[in-house]
This record gives sequence, C-alpha cells and structure tokens, in this order.
Amino acid sequence: MFINLIKRKISTASLSEIFKKCNIDQQIKVRGWVKTTRIMKDVIFCDINDGSTGQNLQLVCNKTQKSKLIFGSSIEAKGLLSQTPKGQLEVKVDEIKVIGDCPTQNYPYVARTLYSSEYIRENLHFRSRVSSFNSMIRCRHQLTNIINNYLFNEGFIQIHTPILTSNDCEGAGEVFIVKPDNDDLLKIMKKNKDDPNEKAYFDHKAFLTVSGQLHLEAMAHGLTKVYTFNPAFRAENCKSAVHLSEFYMLELEESFIESLDDVIATITKMFKSVTKEFLDKSIDDVKRINKDNIEERFNWLEKDFKILTYDEAFKIIKENEHKLKTTVNYKDGISKEQEIFLTQDYCKVPCFVIDWPKEQKSFYMRQKKDNMNLVEAFDFLIPQVGEVAGGSVREDNYDILKSKMSSDQSLEWYLNLRKYGSVTTGGFGLGFERYLQYLLDIHSIKDVIPFPRWAHNCQM
Amino acid sequence: MFINLIKRKISTASLSEIFKKCNIDQQIKVRGWVKTTRIMKDVIFCDINDGSTGQNLQLVCNKTQKSKLIFGSSIEAKGLLSQTPKGQLEVKVDEIKVIGDCPTQNYPYVARTLYSSEYIRENLHFRSRVSSFNSMIRCRHQLTNIINNYLFNEGFIQIHTPILTSNDCEGAGEVFIVKPDNDDLLKIMKKNKDDPNEKAYFDHKAFLTVSGQLHLEAMAHGLTKVYTFNPAFRAENCKSAVHLSEFYMLELEESFIESLDDVIATITKMFKSVTKEFLDKSIDDVKRINKDNIEERFNWLEKDFKILTYDEAFKIIKENEHKLKTTVNYKDGISKEQEIFLTQDYCKVPCFVIDWPKEQKSFYMRQKKDNMNLVEAFDFLIPQVGEVAGGSVREDNYDILKSKMSSDQSLEWYLNLRKYGSVTTGGFGLGFERYLQYLLDIHSIKDVIPFPRWAHNCQM
Repeated sequence: MFINLIKRKISTASLSEIFKKCNIDQQIKVRGWVKTTRIMKDVIFCDINDGSTGQNLQLVCNKTQKSKLIFGSSIEAKGLLSQTPKGQLEVKVDEIKVIGDCPTQNYPYVARTLYSSEYIRENLHFRSRVSSFNSMIRCRHQLTNIINNYLFNEGFIQIHTPILTSNDCEGAGEVFIVKPDNDDLLKIMKKNKDDPNEKAYFDHKAFLTVSGQLHLEAMAHGLTKVYTFNPAFRAENCKSAVHLSEFYMLELEESFIESLDDVIATITKMFKSVTKEFLDKSIDDVKRINKDNIEERFNWLEKDFKILTYDEAFKIIKENEHKLKTTVNYKDGISKEQEIFLTQDYCKVPCFVIDWPKEQKSFYMRQKKDNMNLVEAFDFLIPQVGEVAGGSVREDNYDILKSKMSSDQSLEWYLNLRKYGSVTTGGFGLGFERYLQYLLDIHSIKDVIPFPRWAHNCQM
Repeated sequence: MFINLIKRKISTASLSEIFKKCNIDQQIKVRGWVKTTRIMKDVIFCDINDGSTGQNLQLVCNKTQKSKLIFGSSIEAKGLLSQTPKGQLEVKVDEIKVIGDCPTQNYPYVARTLYSSEYIRENLHFRSRVSSFNSMIRCRHQLTNIINNYLFNEGFIQIHTPILTSNDCEGAGEVFIVKPDNDDLLKIMKKNKDDPNEKAYFDHKAFLTVSGQLHLEAMAHGLTKVYTFNPAFRAENCKSAVHLSEFYMLELEESFIESLDDVIATITKMFKSVTKEFLDKSIDDVKRINKDNIEERFNWLEKDFKILTYDEAFKIIKENEHKLKTTVNYKDGISKEQEIFLTQDYCKVPCFVIDWPKEQKSFYMRQKKDNMNLVEAFDFLIPQVGEVAGGSVREDNYDILKSKMSSDQSLEWYLNLRKYGSVTTGGFGLGFERYLQYLLDIHSIKDVIPFPRWAHNCQM
C-alpha cells in the first residue's frame, strides 16, 4: 500500500555549475532559454541562459536544427562539453528538444536589442527574460544573504516584525488601511453594528506598517540585539526615482548603548563590511549591469565617512545656495537635492548629519543632554540617492517621552517599555533598495525590486 | 569642520560570548535583566539574562546591594569572572548600577512564577522578558537562517515577492483589501470620480498576497530556481491553533522539472537536512522549551517518509471512521483531524498525499496524463499540525490552463507564461510557523511568531 520514497534522478547541471566544474569532454544535458544565434557556413552558434549565472553557454549546432533555435524559446540540448581554442566552454550538440516555443507575435522582445528599463517594466512577468534584470536579481539575492549572515555573526537576532499594525503611525506620512474584502464577513464580525467596516475584523483600525522600529524596541528590551528585514509601506502620491509604496527596510535596534557614536559605529562597520563581501562575490553581475568606473565608484570603501552637525551641514548648503535649485531654509531640513550635494559634491564620501533640531525629528528620539533643542539622531547620506538610512538614540526618560507623545492610547505599550526595566536603545532603518541603487548604479528604484508598486502602478 | 569617524569602544560582552570564551579570573562588565535572586547568609545570588542565550549568568553580590537586585530591572555589573567548584561560571560583583528599575505595580510578572502562554500573550510588548519565549525567538531566527543558507547553497535565488497584489486570488479564501487612509488623497488620485475608493490609489483593487507562487512562476521562467520567504495573509474569521491572519510561507519554484517526484524529493531533502542542522545548532533552546521525549520526537529524521495516493488515504480514513470525530466523505477532502490521524497515528512519520481529484485543487495544477480527473499535487502532512506544505506540478499546457481559468483579465499575464518559452515548473508552499510548532512541540501557532494577528486580535 505504501510506495517507498522516490529517489530523485541526478538533476541536469545548471550553467553556473557547468562553468564552475568545467568537466570537459563529457556528455552533458543542458537547459535554458535561447538568447542569440549566429548562423555560420557550417554550423549555428546558439547562446542559451538559465538564470543561474550571467554568462551564456554557447551551443554548436547542426544547421538542420535551425528551426529549433528560436529566440526566447526554452530548449534542452545534449552533447559534448568542449573548450574552444580561446578557452571558452561550448557544447557540441547532438540533440535538441524544444520545451516551449516562443511566437514572435505579441512577445515584447526581439533578439539582439537593448530596451529601456521603462519598456522592460511594462511587462513585469517577462522581466526575468532580460539578462541585466537577472543580474540585478542575483545581486539583490546575494546582498540579502550577506546582510543576514553578517548580522547573524554579529549576534543580532532576526525578528519578523508585523506587516499589520494597530499603531497610530504618527508622523511617518500617508498610510494604507486594511480590511477584509467581504461585506458579509464584516457584518458578522462587527462587535457594534455602528462600527465602521475598518474596525470589524481586528476590533480597531489596522494599517500596513511604515516601520518595525517600535516593535523592535520591545524585543530589544529582553533580547538586546535585534533586527528586521521586512517590507514597509507608504501611501504617497509620488513618482520619484527613490520612493516606492512597498519597499524593504533593514532595521536594527540594540540595547545598552551609550550614545549616538555606538549606532554610527555599527552602521558604518556593517555598510563597509557587507559592501566589500558583496563586491567580492558579485563583481561579475555588478559589471554586467554597469562596468563603467568600477574602481572609482567604490573608492569610498577605504575612506573614513564624514560626520557633520546639522548646523554645519546647513552652513555648507547656504554657502552653496547658488549651485542648488531647491530653497535653503533652516526650518525645512535638507532636500533630496541638498542631501546629494552634501555627500556627492562636498564630502565626496558617504556622510552622517547629526544633532538635528528636535522639531524636525520624531518624538522617540532622545534630546541631547547639553542642548535640549537638539536630538541624538543622524541621517546617513550617500551619493546618487541621498538619505539611505536614519538612526537615533531613543528617548529613555519616561517623563520626557510621555510629554512628547500624543494622548492617543495605541502607543501606551511603547511608553511602558521605559517604565519597567528600561534600557537605552538605539538603532537605524536602512532603505535596502536605495543601497542597491547605489551599489549597482541604477537610476530608478523601480528597477532594483522584482515587483515595484507605486502610485497608479500595481502590476500582477 | 569635519569630525573624524569615532571608533567604537570595545563593547561589553554578551552572556553568550562570556559562556563561549570563559575568560576566568578576568574583570568583566555584564548587563542584563534580573531574573531571580536567592538571599543567603553572607551573599545574594542573582541570575541575570540578556537574551543572547537561554543560560542565565549568576552574580554573587554583597548584601548591601539588595535594593538594586529587583526582579525585572535592567542592571550593569562589574566584577571578577570566576568558576564555582561545580564548574559553573559566576561573577563576583564589585559594583552594580541599576539602569532601569521595575516597579511591581502593573508589571505583569513576578519572580519564580510560570505563566500560561495565553497570559503571556496578553502583553506582546513584554514577551521578550519571558525566557521560554526568547528561546522560541532564537529558534525561529536560527531556523530562518538555516533555511536561507540551505537554499542559497542549493542554487535557489530568493525573490521578494510582493505583499500588495492586483491578482484576483481565486480560491484561496478570504482576502484583505488595501487603500490609503486619507479621503482627500483618494479624491485627488481617482481617475474617474465615480470609482470606488478601493481603486483610487492603484487604479484597480489591491489585496494583501495570499501566496507568492504565481509571481515566483514568472521569475522561474528565466531564473529557473527561485524561492520566497515572505508573509502571507488570510482574512478568515478563525481562532484555530494552526491558523493566523498574517503568517510566513516558504515558497519554492523550480523550472525544467519532469514530475511530482522531483518536487517531493526537493522538499523531503530540505525538510530533513534543515531539521538536522537546526537540532545540531539549537538543541539547548529546543530542550528549554520542552525537554520531554526529545529522541522520540525526532526519530522520523532517520526514516523514509510515506507516500499515499488520495484514494489510499481515503480508504484508510474510511476504515478508521469510528476513531474520528469528523465526517469522512470522498468529495470533502481530508479534515485537519484526519490529516493528523494519517500521519501521526497511521503512518507514524510525515507523509505525502498525492494524486488528488482535480475538483479539490487549484486551477494551476497539472492534470495527470493517465487520468485527467486527478492532478499532480501533494499535501505534506506532519504529526501535531497536519498539513505543513502543499505542492504540485503546474499546468504547462496553454489550452488546458486557459480552459480552467476564469475569464477574469487580472491573470492574463500568468497564462502568457505558458505561451512564450514555457517550461514545466513545480514547487510548494510550506507554512513556516507550523513547521516551528512541530519542531518545538508548541501547541498554538500564536506562540511561534513574535506578533500574532488573528480575528479580533492585532496588538501593537
């Protein structure tokens, strides 16, 4: 009656494995999508790719196989793995099987053509057929893995902070609200029949998270070193090259810290260490995306980052007002253009802006002991995208915190963290996509995430 | 004008580091929360913990320090790291500083008391003060890390599939719908003023994802081996011990597969390999949560899993109907109780149920070539929780797929994957929390996730 567990057949090697192992003069079976073909006098050269590497594998095919080598179709080929006189691997094909053909009608791509990223974005479900997009995805994957392992080894515990939250997300901009899409269900679940639909399922309003920081702080009050690497959401009506409605944030929180220096040291060490390991492992894909000025683009890795106070930063911007399009005003903070000017043109390295006027920052940031008008917070600015991270020491004085919070009850739990066994905590949130934009020199944030969502756009 | 980068002071070691390094007879500084105190004739023994390990560190304190050793408060202690005659590490304390005291009034815990998980759940923000909860969090963190690295090494590329989706999630149960929580914004963004609010932001309805599978299939058609490890959502009105409104799913998709055997082999290898590594690394925390019958609980690791066809499974259930509370009916599928009976009582190991009647499964599952009434799908059942994963070969025939899909336009992109360079793909979705429940022998799914959300419950 029972079938014993089926042992899996030895799987066909991926292109990545083939390039690594180089088992020349062996019969192999390979699979992938047809990228290009070149018809020669006696043979057809056909490049295929399966997404495991950016490097295509060249098939040497008989001219009778021409009809099977259609751009975009998926094929399986058997033959002898060989080496060209120049040392390149290729397969001398005996047999080709078409798995799925690819009609040209309505398919968005044709062979040997470069498309704009805007065009490629029109069909998100076909982006994985585009080599440069696949390079980006492998880089994103590699960077995710490196960050997680780096933090694991540094003793930080990953917390899956919630997407749904009942917190009043004060000050973080426009939020999304959530309810079941079933009116009958809402009717049954309402505790009072006059309640709005938005309160039926959870008994109160529920939003998509704008940040996991407050939840992390609760966890840090017992687990000490924690982080989250989750999606966050903003319902802004915005089409900028550095904003999305759904994006990934790396947020980290550490207890028993003493000052903002600790937080700056943590993010600096991580930023440099992770980037170095990333370049070490993903340089081929980085170059495939953009091979220009690689050394220059990463020369900041060996330099010290700069630290400016808000007042110093303001003075620099004011002195350079004539070079800027945006207005410079002490109370307005620093615009995106001004951020990029500070880090890219002035400091010429990533830089921190610290000691912010408290009016410009969130209620949970600690006021400086020697100047209560300033808070112990930083913005971390990098060339090309501007602010990539924001961090602070959190207000650890119960009374000050209480006076700065609205009377709203939804955050009473947060206040209580500072009443029972409180510790000084600090941390930061880093925009993962902006970090990727900087590393890969990609203009639009929509091209460093597999499924971008922004105003009027939610494909698939 | 620039301050050079501040080098971070050597940080105080975590308890985990202290236990690993064992630098006996050295002066150290430690920090943590007071767990228990025992007042002896000459000294006070005080156990502290910082969440980096389940093991408490014993402080040997002077009796004058009594007032500083209050349960729940956070302290910093300096002294000599020593070893007791029994080989236990302890700190002979010279100096203690209270960082944050812990008033007993309204604090939910008192020393030396065990609480029910329901009680602990009443204050999610204080759960990280509970040792067993912290053990669970470290296990969850470890298991997450092992899964990601296992799949990385197996060549699977992590894809951040979207939380927001415009797909009509047919057949997956109740869904949440999303819109900005700002009526003025909705008014501005509407393309037609008669549009419902739900269409204003994205031009069409947007839901919280119920599964990333279809998005993964698009990525697999170019990247071959992909996975996602993201939250998924159900708006069910349900309080069961194995369901949540927001939960984590590991979903994997592989191209160029041949049959369901390939998918079963992939999940079996992963399930055993990941579990073994997890036990190897987290056995201390696993035992802290529940030390009963450890060997018996994991004896399935050395056994073959069973495979039953749906017909075989049905026959077994029918023959054992007298032992079951739920009705047995061929067309109703297998109830939770029946699932647990099959795997726990009958097979006594995890088991797969394959060859399902197509009416009971989703439109995207491939019909069997030798019996078009059945689909190439499995449910993977484990003791205690029942179904932990579901998988299938996906329908790769354009015409069959089209005939099984509703005329709804939102999934036309999915149909087109099978028209242009199609390949046979297959994969599964595994409920991460249920897997954790099984490994840790924890009754309620609400206790294996940091911030559980279910009907009428969305704390913080």
